[in-house]
Amino acid sequence: MTGIALVGAGRMARVHAASIAAAGAQVATIYDPIEEAACSLARNTGARVAATAAEAMADPAADAIMIATSSDTHVELLLEAVRTGKPVLCEKPLASSYEASRKFVAAIGEAAARKVFLGFNRRFDRGHAAVREGVHAGRIGRLEQLTITSRDPFPPPLEYIPRSGGLFRDMMIHDFDMARSIVGKPMVSVTAHGSSIIDPEVGRLGDVDTASVTMLAEDGTIVTILNSRRCAFGFDQRIEAFGEKGMLLSDNPRQSGFTAFTREAPGTAAPILEFFMERYGPSYTEEIRLFIDCAREGRDMPVNAIDGLMAAYLAEAATTSLAQGKTIILTGPDQEFSK
Amino acid sequence: MTGIALVGAGRMARVHAASIAAAGAQVATIYDPIEEAACSLARNTGARVAATAAEAMADPAADAIMIATSSDTHVELLLEAVRTGKPVLCEKPLASSYEASRKFVAAIGEAAARKVFLGFNRRFDRGHAAVREGVHAGRIGRLEQLTITSRDPFPPPLEYIPRSGGLFRDMMIHDFDMARSIVGKPMVSVTAHGSSIIDPEVGRLGDVDTASVTMLAEDGTIVTILNSRRCAFGFDQRIEAFGEKGMLLSDNPRQSGFTAFTREAPGTAAPILEFFMERYGPSYTEEIRLFIDCAREGRDMPVNAIDGLMAAYLAEAATTSLAQGKTIILTGPDQEFSK
Amino acid sequence: MTGIALVGAGRMARVHAASIAAAGAQVATIYDPIEEAACSLARNTGARVAATAAEAMADPAADAIMIATSSDTHVELLLEAVRTGKPVLCEKPLASSYEASRKFVAAIGEAAARKVFLGFNRRFDRGHAAVREGVHAGRIGRLEQLTITSRDPFPPPLEYIPRSGGLFRDMMIHDFDMARSIVGKPMVSVTAHGSSIIDPEVGRLGDVDTASVTMLAEDGTIVTILNSRRCAFGFDQRIEAFGEKGMLLSDNPRQSGFTAFTREAPGTAAPILEFFMERYGPSYTEEIRLFIDCAREGRDMPVNAIDGLMAAYLAEAATTSLAQGKTIILTGPDQEFSK
Amino acid sequence: MTGIALVGAGRMARVHAASIAAAGAQVATIYDPIEEAACSLARNTGARVAATAAEAMADPAADAIMIATSSDTHVELLLEAVRTGKPVLCEKPLASSYEASRKFVAAIGEAAARKVFLGFNRRFDRGHAAVREGVHAGRIGRLEQLTITSRDPFPPPLEYIPRSGGLFRDMMIHDFDMARSIVGKPMVSVTAHGSSIIDPEVGRLGDVDTASVTMLAEDGTIVTILNSRRCAFGFDQRIEAFGEKGMLLSDNPRQSGFTAFTREAPGTAAPILEFFMERYGPSYTEEIRLFIDCAREGRDMPVNAIDGLMAAYLAEAATTSLAQGKTIILTGPDQEFSK
Repeated sequence: MTGIALVGAGRMARVHAASIAAAGAQVATIYDPIEEAACSLARNTGARVAATAAEAMADPAADAIMIATSSDTHVELLLEAVRTGKPVLCEKPLASSYEASRKFVAAIGEAAARKVFLGFNRRFDRGHAAVREGVHAGRIGRLEQLTITSRDPFPPPLEYIPRSGGLFRDMMIHDFDMARSIVGKPMVSVTAHGSSIIDPEVGRLGDVDTASVTMLAEDGTIVTILNSRRCAFGFDQRIEAFGEKGMLLSDNPRQSGFTAFTREAPGTAAPILEFFMERYGPSYTEEIRLFIDCAREGRDMPVNAIDGLMAAYLAEAATTSLAQGKTIILTGPDQEFSK
Repeated sequence: MTGIALVGAGRMARVHAASIAAAGAQVATIYDPIEEAACSLARNTGARVAATAAEAMADPAADAIMIATSSDTHVELLLEAVRTGKPVLCEKPLASSYEASRKFVAAIGEAAARKVFLGFNRRFDRGHAAVREGVHAGRIGRLEQLTITSRDPFPPPLEYIPRSGGLFRDMMIHDFDMARSIVGKPMVSVTAHGSSIIDPEVGRLGDVDTASVTMLAEDGTIVTILNSRRCAFGFDQRIEAFGEKGMLLSDNPRQSGFTAFTREAPGTAAPILEFFMERYGPSYTEEIRLFIDCAREGRDMPVNAIDGLMAAYLAEAATTSLAQGKTIILTGPDQEFSK
Repeated sequence: MTGIALVGAGRMARVHAASIAAAGAQVATIYDPIEEAACSLARNTGARVAATAAEAMADPAADAIMIATSSDTHVELLLEAVRTGKPVLCEKPLASSYEASRKFVAAIGEAAARKVFLGFNRRFDRGHAAVREGVHAGRIGRLEQLTITSRDPFPPPLEYIPRSGGLFRDMMIHDFDMARSIVGKPMVSVTAHGSSIIDPEVGRLGDVDTASVTMLAEDGTIVTILNSRRCAFGFDQRIEAFGEKGMLLSDNPRQSGFTAFTREAPGTAAPILEFFMERYGPSYTEEIRLFIDCAREGRDMPVNAIDGLMAAYLAEAATTSLAQGKTIILTGPDQEFSK
Repeated sequence: MTGIALVGAGRMARVHAASIAAAGAQVATIYDPIEEAACSLARNTGARVAATAAEAMADPAADAIMIATSSDTHVELLLEAVRTGKPVLCEKPLASSYEASRKFVAAIGEAAARKVFLGFNRRFDRGHAAVREGVHAGRIGRLEQLTITSRDPFPPPLEYIPRSGGLFRDMMIHDFDMARSIVGKPMVSVTAHGSSIIDPEVGRLGDVDTASVTMLAEDGTIVTILNSRRCAFGFDQRIEAFGEKGMLLSDNPRQSGFTAFTREAPGTAAPILEFFMERYGPSYTEEIRLFIDCAREGRDMPVNAIDGLMAAYLAEAATTSLAQGKTIILTGPDQEFSK
């Protein structure tokens, strides 16, 4: 059985603790700056409580490390974790900016970066994964167009906007990673459009709440990403991959198989899933299972700090494109990572 | 080009006239007791008007005959048509009762009966036909359960009930034919249930408006037919064939690909098709095309007077089953036709 | 917090233990004849292990009792549980036969029987519950036809057949309960048809593997239940309620929102859910939550031993109908329970 | 009854002739440079044959004019038609280029241009029309994102490419019109991306076969159009309108309601419709009906030469955007027409 040092005891840490048990591993040690939170989660999992993150990570009963703390602590904790030589999983984002991500990868080196599992959980959604696997298996031949739609059910509070890094870094980051994982080829240009159409206040804070990004991949594949901070009918999360031999679609699952047929509402289905724990809950379980497998076998992580860096790079380019009102041509050393 | 003698110039005759043109044939002669109707349709099709049905049928320009008159005239006109030796298509029903159907087939003989195309148009519905062809092609292996749902959008006027022959002979007759065409094996028992739940007045007139029939085929296949005289959301016409390797479904097509997703109505699709010309319009065209092909080639008709007789036989049995409150075991000479 | 005495530590008990935690209650005591199983589950839940079922039930830390043992022990354990005066939930079936169920209810009295929660979990499936609630709320006006389809992915081993009680008591029992809960009116007749079409060996053992039952309710509503012991494409579980104002449908949910569109497979969706833990897993959680709520508030159970008795009664009638090849008219004292 | 002068007797003219009859109007006169074609269609419709287009248009029996000739003759015939003062419908495109369209509108004036019905038939597709009407009726509140997908089943012959005017003018022109008709507000920018990913030869001829266009409307609405010259699974024609209160979708209708559920293909539906006459056939009938109504009542045409001009303007801008690799800001006098 694999023992895990869990750094953080908040909401995501509790979700991960359940997945750890489901995967047949166990939480060995927990650290959280709020001791009460650590103790409570320790009681439920049979773990011991560590006095510091470093102590938790160094615990001999911990074969692997999971970091589920606030975003601003990720880089520092990751550096600590990498020093232990143990496999580590960190919640996204890797760092607060592309620049910080780049420095982190430079500091630990590419080989080590590929051993850091980065929690882009949506890759493990059953429908999205079936699209990616179908594309990679050649079911639609050469990929020609990829369209990703991500719409949150409701916007975050206005006070969150200034510290969010902007829609592209905060929200579309998942879609940049998804696009990279499906296309599997370097992007050569990014063009962003956006509006603060839901709430003009967002515009005054320098951000957008509705956005569209077009990317061209090196082989001509056209990627389109649509984001909205608000969606009246639920958590709209879809992917459409179109290629020479057909199309693969990951549509929104519904809450049940219920449909009403009446004269007024002639075919009203159950709503789509509400928000991320409903829709992506199972993907977290899958993610943790995969991390534990890779950790046991000492493999490179299938989604890692290099992916975090590259998604941040695309978010950076989109932010620049919107600000300058023009297409950004992607060049430079970072391109090499996606080869 | 094939010339058709069209007996009747009412609504169905006009539908058929359009299909005749679409099939590359032409209406040569028309007869209708209402001369004005005959003349009007003749003008639109370039046909001549005949003074009697016999004259129309005998017209040398007519290579084949189509009978689209009121049900009570079918037998007499069919006997006339069969005498000409020309291929003939007749609207359903073959006759007003099973007994009359049996006498008609006895009068002309089985071989001639198989040359009379009987207008069970639903066999040519694209979805229903795909189910039948899939079953016959072995896509689901051995057939085990067949479920047919037919619900009209609204009940006929009460005054129609006494002369309808009852729900089983008037409405479920299509489903008995469909069941026979898909199962392809003799039925061994019929059990009917029914209620006058929509309108108790229907019950006082000795009929039902909601019914269910279960039939067992010789090999144990279970057939279920559900009928209702009223359906609030449109013309509900579905078939489900279940077998050892899977299920084939013919579901209700919708009026368009439109769907609305709002908070109140989270996935409201376009209504299903309204009534029989909307849903089964294309099946009439397909039926006429097939009749003309068979007529040109002198082939037996794929759906003919024997099928009309057998469907009437099952309707008769269902009527008896309901009246007696028990399962009717099917025996006797008529069984042989379905071998 | 509510403490639960859990009698049984097998597969269903473990499923229930997770639901107990999710509902904010806790397992206080566990008894299982296999002590190792009891200890293992006790470790994971923090419960103590009792030496006998009676000891577990009597534990002052247990506010309510859950029985999840093999079917043949239910009656005896229930009698014990009822004596404690604590709320009790028991897995279905209530007893091994209708006769045994009737004796049990007679022994404890109707009022006590309504305090025994009987685990017909499918009532709590999200889609099925939406159909029932929609019918009861009048969304389709008067109910006219109810059609329930239940098909298992694969047949049980042949050796199970002789001790199963037959398809109607073993498998269709869920559908009888579902029909009762949706219709809400007494049934007046039961007609069963069946075949051993999947495996003739089943027929030689006196059972069927493919069946159809038609029931008439007192107000003329027609209920149709279709069962099959084998379904090549998954666990086929559907309900269709049809009434004067429309239709409510609980269709099979799919494993994901994935669909492939290619020339060969022009719209191939993800498979439906595989078997009962995939499809009905969430319904168990919902069931336990509801039991605990009712237990806390001392309410009658919404699905109880009377429901278990009535479902057994209908299964008995269907078994007789098939054996005698005729419709069974339902009469007698048991009818009163469904008023 | 309204008499129509039909200029052209080719394929589209024959489609229109059937719609004219269905709308209760009649073809009065036909002209086609190929006399045989004109005579053949005249026989089927009871029309007379005119010696020149001008003679046909001037025929006193013709209350309205329909032009269904090759694209390069539209402007000249339209000028002739406008001189008669009769209502006129012309197949799209208005002219061979934006410049030619502009000159035509300038020549006849805006008021006259609004009396020229331009055949953007897709506006009358039942699903697309439901989206537009839903948006205009406020069902989704303020429109925020509009996504239009148009993919032809197979590319045109390579020799067609040089005289096509390029993908934006030839194919996406329909989508520009659709976007304008749904958004109902002026566009302020156009950004085009494209690849010759299906066939590199297309690229060598200076065109693209796969394209994406992003437009911003004056109020911040983001419009995305995706085009492909090839689609393996049929004629992919979808619209998604997303707004503050929900989403309206026009999805691809299928050929029938057939679906197969087998282990290998667990839910394979009937294919989507194949090409434009299958998908858009009914929209032509609707278009002609509307034209005849407007002609009878002397109303402005709901889709007219100004719309043709504006769609050409957007196509022009997209072509420029792709050539220059930058966003085109839309300004100038043409903007006024879309107010």
